[in-house]
Amino acid sequence: MKLTKEQSQEIKSQQLQNNKTKRVTVPELEKILYEAIPALDHGFVRVVDYMGDDTSIVQSARVSYGKGTKQVSTDSGLIKYLMRHWHSTPFEMCEIKYHIKLPIFIARQWIRHRTANVNEYSARYSILDKEFYLPTPENLAAQSVSNRQGRGDILEGNQAKKVLELLKDDAERTYSNYEKMLNQRYDGSTIDENKKGLARELARMNLTLNTYTQWYWKTDLLNLMNFLRLRADHHAQYEIRVYADIMLNSLKKWVPITYEAFMDYRVGGTEVSAKGKTVIKKLIKGENVSMDSSGLSKREWNELMLAFELKEKLIK
Amino acid sequence: MKLTKEQSQEIKSQQLQNNKTKRVTVPELEKILYEAIPALDHGFVRVVDYMGDDTSIVQSARVSYGKGTKQVSTDSGLIKYLMRHWHSTPFEMCEIKYHIKLPIFIARQWIRHRTANVNEYSARYSILDKEFYLPTPENLAAQSVSNRQGRGDILEGNQAKKVLELLKDDAERTYSNYEKMLNQRYDGSTIDENKKGLARELARMNLTLNTYTQWYWKTDLLNLMNFLRLRADHHAQYEIRVYADIMLNSLKKWVPITYEAFMDYRVGGTEVSAKGKTVIKKLIKGENVSMDSSGLSKREWNELMLAFELKEKLIK
Amino acid sequence: MKLTKEQSQEIKSQQLQNNKTKRVTVPELEKILYEAIPALDHGFVRVVDYMGDDTSIVQSARVSYGKGTKQVSTDSGLIKYLMRHWHSTPFEMCEIKYHIKLPIFIARQWIRHRTANVNEYSARYSILDKEFYLPTPENLAAQSVSNRQGRGDILEGNQAKKVLELLKDDAERTYSNYEKMLNQRYDGSTIDENKKGLARELARMNLTLNTYTQWYWKTDLLNLMNFLRLRADHHAQYEIRVYADIMLNSLKKWVPITYEAFMDYRVGGTEVSAKGKTVIKKLIKGENVSMDSSGLSKREWNELMLAFELKEKLIK
Amino acid sequence: MKLTKEQSQEIKSQQLQNNKTKRVTVPELEKILYEAIPALDHGFVRVVDYMGDDTSIVQSARVSYGKGTKQVSTDSGLIKYLMRHWHSTPFEMCEIKYHIKLPIFIARQWIRHRTANVNEYSARYSILDKEFYLPTPENLAAQSVSNRQGRGDILEGNQAKKVLELLKDDAERTYSNYEKMLNQRYDGSTIDENKKGLARELARMNLTLNTYTQWYWKTDLLNLMNFLRLRADHHAQYEIRVYADIMLNSLKKWVPITYEAFMDYRVGGTEVSAKGKTVIKKLIKGENVSMDSSGLSKREWNELMLAFELKEKLIK
Repeated sequence: MKLTKEQSQEIKSQQLQNNKTKRVTVPELEKILYEAIPALDHGFVRVVDYMGDDTSIVQSARVSYGKGTKQVSTDSGLIKYLMRHWHSTPFEMCEIKYHIKLPIFIARQWIRHRTANVNEYSARYSILDKEFYLPTPENLAAQSVSNRQGRGDILEGNQAKKVLELLKDDAERTYSNYEKMLNQRYDGSTIDENKKGLARELARMNLTLNTYTQWYWKTDLLNLMNFLRLRADHHAQYEIRVYADIMLNSLKKWVPITYEAFMDYRVGGTEVSAKGKTVIKKLIKGENVSMDSSGLSKREWNELMLAFELKEKLIK
Repeated sequence: MKLTKEQSQEIKSQQLQNNKTKRVTVPELEKILYEAIPALDHGFVRVVDYMGDDTSIVQSARVSYGKGTKQVSTDSGLIKYLMRHWHSTPFEMCEIKYHIKLPIFIARQWIRHRTANVNEYSARYSILDKEFYLPTPENLAAQSVSNRQGRGDILEGNQAKKVLELLKDDAERTYSNYEKMLNQRYDGSTIDENKKGLARELARMNLTLNTYTQWYWKTDLLNLMNFLRLRADHHAQYEIRVYADIMLNSLKKWVPITYEAFMDYRVGGTEVSAKGKTVIKKLIKGENVSMDSSGLSKREWNELMLAFELKEKLIK
Repeated sequence: MKLTKEQSQEIKSQQLQNNKTKRVTVPELEKILYEAIPALDHGFVRVVDYMGDDTSIVQSARVSYGKGTKQVSTDSGLIKYLMRHWHSTPFEMCEIKYHIKLPIFIARQWIRHRTANVNEYSARYSILDKEFYLPTPENLAAQSVSNRQGRGDILEGNQAKKVLELLKDDAERTYSNYEKMLNQRYDGSTIDENKKGLARELARMNLTLNTYTQWYWKTDLLNLMNFLRLRADHHAQYEIRVYADIMLNSLKKWVPITYEAFMDYRVGGTEVSAKGKTVIKKLIKGENVSMDSSGLSKREWNELMLAFELKEKLIK
Repeated sequence: MKLTKEQSQEIKSQQLQNNKTKRVTVPELEKILYEAIPALDHGFVRVVDYMGDDTSIVQSARVSYGKGTKQVSTDSGLIKYLMRHWHSTPFEMCEIKYHIKLPIFIARQWIRHRTANVNEYSARYSILDKEFYLPTPENLAAQSVSNRQGRGDILEGNQAKKVLELLKDDAERTYSNYEKMLNQRYDGSTIDENKKGLARELARMNLTLNTYTQWYWKTDLLNLMNFLRLRADHHAQYEIRVYADIMLNSLKKWVPITYEAFMDYRVGGTEVSAKGKTVIKKLIKGENVSMDSSGLSKREWNELMLAFELKEKLIK
């Protein structure tokens, strides 16, 4: 990741702000506020604003439940209780805003989370930066054989090299032709004074999906956790997980108590179906269980056994 | 409006906070932060948190439009442009949170605005305060004859007095019976030690709709304006307008440039239909127009004439 | 529940419709279409429209995953897979519309589910029906001692009788005063020709929260299941559960495969936290476990033990 | 647009369905149900399901307003009234589902409308079709000089030819390299049996933004109109307008009364700001007006004059 001189200066001046406020603040999060944390080869994640902290959740919950919450003596106890019982609205009372730079194909995956506010850089108005994502060799994975949306082994030597060449050449050529069609270079300079350029809203269609875009993305804490639960998961595509992991770290700084409850109940937790419960109950009693009699499919059976680390019961 | 000692102390301690932040702050809004501004007889509006200011809108818009926005030289010019052309997403980048105390029948109207986060005091968990809305005499209006959802003249002398008596007596009696059923008084004390009380989730059904409730209500600037456009309008029910007017004032303190654009383009503006435009064009040319040839209904015709202050053309 | 003559006729004429369509239809659901299924003493649930069926979910999923879904051979297998892995969007492709008559205090609970479309009967425009909810004796429960939002034992003899009297008297008196203030009876007739009535938008505030209202409520299948998961649960308030149970039955008729997966994975399932998993793993291995060493709170511990029917391990 | 044999057969079999239903149906819309209406060079729009019609809007409004709506005698009058006064919820009571094939750069614009349900073809699971959008010569516009997001004159002769060549060559080359990286051809056949292919979720990043994707897109009538208002407008990018125009036509078949009101009040209508109203009032009175004294910016002034066809008053 390299920032333009302008961007670096803007960040620096934002970080020099020293304002007074009666609002709650989170010193740990303030430390990284505005900072561009690198993601992939040219991307970044920046926390650019936030509202509320762990106590805001508690405050809202206590408004809802009134005197009823006096029973739960600590903030931590109350937040855990809310998380465990899927109380959602108190977590909506905190808000966070990120500035993200990311490849377009990842942006397309990301935008499927609809409950967020987004302002994306518009290639109708402006020329996109000359930056595209190229995976590092250890991330050049073959298609998984068993999982249609997963990755298998790393591609080796020559084939990996060839793939990287193709990606690089195609991105560079299409970008260069994008400039030709626009009759303008990435720095804004005109190529041929005697020519008109193609409309930006058309020329952009020639770019490849690994071209970087950027956006402001704002969401509440509940929906941030919904996003992270899916995208920081090991089933998520590596390239979006890189972003989710950075954001998970900002979650930890922002709302440490909520973070802990989230890791325990959501990220580290498991759901067990009604049929699965019957199997577990028998296992606890030391009774015999088998996939056939359980009513579970092979896939489900194996997921359940893996969740409780019963590798010896996996069925191939 | 009277606050409990506890509430007054909480507000005082919130207002004494003096935190440092790198986030943008709005000194004008900070001045009224946490303050309980009275609304109706027992209600209030408190701004309890906010995120962003006018510059946040500009910043997001400039990320979207990139170099494209350099043409618009001032923040004010850009915000006006965004408002005029219904650009919505930059206004979603600011967020505000209110603590509101309001009668239940108004809460029911309010909650129809779905794009907001809400934590309401729960009468399943806790006992509702012994407070109910009673209109002042000048707000005791008769049903409008012409407008099915409007108000007409003020009720006079005896009838007004009678109505107020009925409202007061019924609210007091139902509340007192609510306590009896709960076997608990509003202050939490038990009435008869030898009896159980009815479940709170059931007893609450005996309360009248003018009983006060309270909630935290958080929304983004765009949806706040959508709310205010409808609820600060003179067609809105007086009782919700009281709240909207207070919030409109907080909008002015929070984002003064946006407020001005909002007043010009939304609140003070008018929509003219295709048929209406034809009428206006003729009027400008000094041509004759008539309702019959316009294709407008009588209602529409009159709305149009009123919007442009052509009272002489109103049709009865 | 009693329907007005008008309502009965409308339902009858709706049910006599016999239209041809190229859309998918669900004969089982068509059988109960428009029918007013009684709920509580005066309420009802009517399915008044729907879009899609189980095959619509499959169809959408196959568009998403393309040839990737050919591996999953059956519709039922695919729907189970989607449910298990929390794939949400295919379930959003089906839509259903209900007409519901329900007490206001239940409507207030219901409306907290924001991802739905609602048209409620407006008491600003029209006079509310003279109908209010009165619980049957077996639903007159005392406040639970252990659970702040729960119900305990049934109230007995005299106390129950007294509560019912209070509820009935207050509802009748406040309704009667509502009529007086309106200067209009529930049937629309004027009481005193020489008087004006109070504006409807004001008079309604005198009604008690058990007064019935009604609305059209439309949502997609995903959000219907989110609603039912919470409201058909035994923790839900009895009065809303009555509605949820009827709707659960309409779900079964509408999308039987989805219904089965929903019951298995959502309704009958359990979530186990990271710490809870450690406990279960030990139990399966026959190792000793104790609340103290588990890191679980007493409440959490007991919830886990109950979920797997280990009553002997409950801690008082 | 060419459909695969499979697709054609699926459409045919869908159209042969002849089901009975008690739901309302719209014969005009049924006529085009499932049909793939061509859009751009390889795209299409298909209406694949719907719920409700004009009478559903009326029905919902009458539930809301109760006896209050009896004053408005006709369905058409009521729908116009609702549209004029921005009543939104009755229009949410109708739902429609489209199957759309469109270029990725248009999909990215489209998806900004968040209040809809979407299932998109996933290039993580499956190989994208070998189809990309190439504009026809008359749509190869130069960048507008005056409007940063607009189009100016058509590119001429050689330059147009060159642009088309670049677009075509780059799309073909990147697609061919996509196949190479996948080690699989678009028809699913393997290229080199001795090699693994790159994971699909990675290979897709090499495609250009004019590659076609497809999705199911479902929304309610209100949000469909919000979409069409923006995207069928002459300011919208031509390529999305093509889709919006087709959908506008389906709107007309589906809910003809609503369509008419929509065209009159939304599409053909104009908003006039508070300052603009002052100008219009003076113009009607025959008074002198000037931009300077109006408080309007030049841009605003010209927009106002154009809206009322006062070309002689435009300021350059």
